Amino acid sequence: MTSEFDREISLRPDGAGWAGTFGDGWRIGGGINGGLLLAAVALGLRKTIGDPHPDPLAISATYLSPTGPGTFVVRPDVVRRGRVTATAQASLLQVLDTGAEVERIRALATYGDLGSVSTDVRVMSRPPGMPPPEKCVTVADAPADFLEHSSLLQRLDLRLDPACAGWVLGQPAGRGEFRAWLRLPDGREPDPLTLLLAIDALPPVTFDFGLYGWAPTVALTAYLRGRPAPGWLRVRTVSRNLFGGSLEEDGEVWDSTGRLVAQSRQLAFSPRG
Amino acid sequence: MTSEFDREISLRPDGAGWAGTFGDGWRIGGGINGGLLLAAVALGLRKTIGDPHPDPLAISATYLSPTGPGTFVVRPDVVRRGRVTATAQASLLQVLDTGAEVERIRALATYGDLGSVSTDVRVMSRPPGMPPPEKCVTVADAPADFLEHSSLLQRLDLRLDPACAGWVLGQPAGRGEFRAWLRLPDGREPDPLTLLLAIDALPPVTFDFGLYGWAPTVALTAYLRGRPAPGWLRVRTVSRNLFGGSLEEDGEVWDSTGRLVAQSRQLAFSPRG
Repeated sequence: MTSEFDREISLRPDGAGWAGTFGDGWRIGGGINGGLLLAAVALGLRKTIGDPHPDPLAISATYLSPTGPGTFVVRPDVVRRGRVTATAQASLLQVLDTGAEVERIRALATYGDLGSVSTDVRVMSRPPGMPPPEKCVTVADAPADFLEHSSLLQRLDLRLDPACAGWVLGQPAGRGEFRAWLRLPDGREPDPLTLLLAIDALPPVTFDFGLYGWAPTVALTAYLRGRPAPGWLRVRTVSRNLFGGSLEEDGEVWDSTGRLVAQSRQLAFSPRG
Repeated sequence: MTSEFDREISLRPDGAGWAGTFGDGWRIGGGINGGLLLAAVALGLRKTIGDPHPDPLAISATYLSPTGPGTFVVRPDVVRRGRVTATAQASLLQVLDTGAEVERIRALATYGDLGSVSTDVRVMSRPPGMPPPEKCVTVADAPADFLEHSSLLQRLDLRLDPACAGWVLGQPAGRGEFRAWLRLPDGREPDPLTLLLAIDALPPVTFDFGLYGWAPTVALTAYLRGRPAPGWLRVRTVSRNLFGGSLEEDGEVWDSTGRLVAQSRQLAFSPRG
């Protein structure tokens, strides 16, 4: 049986690219979640690049306009095929009711094989200590208007560390850090594509500063460092620089064995709130 | 009088793009320094995009092949012009002796106006404490074979914090962190373009782990957060994850007033040594 996630980003051949259809279930505010979009782009690139470079090692995306439910196409362009890596770019586009084609995302990526990375560890950042998932704050505890705003949250089993979930009760900690457990509720185990979802699945870290408005992503980069083991992911997002109308948000994802499997950084404009 | 830096990246119109010529003075190993290359690409984009979006807010680059001294062209492509930002991509190419054109770098960037950023500061990372420049380790203290290897170092006034310069004497600290003062020796004051040089101007942080080989950059992203004040820059580079054959290197740059003006992250393959 295909998982909700895989169904949502499934692609069919479309000329020199790929086409798919987003439903209404992965929305955050008015637009489809940026991590899901990145996963769809990455799947299109994987299908184009193929072996021996199946995995995104690094992918940088620029979000040009909000993506809504409906049909989309991914247009890939392979820039270079090397022995160890392949480099490609891709655009995700939608066709408006007027017939005009609008670019939503442009991405630049390096693909390789995460299955062939060595097991050497010189230094690796450790997952944050936090209570077990059953002692964390679930989405069901979030305010109803927040849930309505964000159909995405019903697609994720997301458990926030209570120490950084004060914003749920209107008491943000003001530290600019979120920590959470994450898995897909239908049992779909993590892989490189769901890691791209994971890095953009937590609430904006600006919530921890009491800024609840929309924080539009200017640019987002993810590095994948390994294929995740089955089970819960742990995700931490941090901002150390919120000034001058913008902020960076750094994300880290560890698998159930405690291995760092993904890193991300995005630049966002700060909400006005 | 034009500075060494501005002369090196100066561009002349070339069809729909820009052309320039790199000398031999900004080499690190066999190739031109990645930060200088990024500055040349960013200048080409600035000249193309123009007002009211003069500054790169975010730029991500993929390094496809090493750039040598000689003629290069920058081919820009403006993707979207908005009110607050413009998005563009660019390629830097060189023509081989065989006449074949080879792409060296592909970059994706968001431009805006750093002169219009607000002065609000909610949180900002502080510059690291370190001895004044005159008590730091200058490039003149580095081993002669290292200097020969890297003509770039003669273009920079770079002063390493002695606490993280042990590698110069073959005693790397093993912490994966470098801190340094940086300025251009001919008095050229910092601006957004030289910040792109600054984020890639320090020795690879792998040296701090005793790995002295080449650490090829897979992808590099820089965020510019403000226009720097005149004077010394402080630069810190850190890697917290060196495993599986790769590492991230995070950079931060503060201006002489202590304001964070740039952030960078790169993914590199680790040296074999």
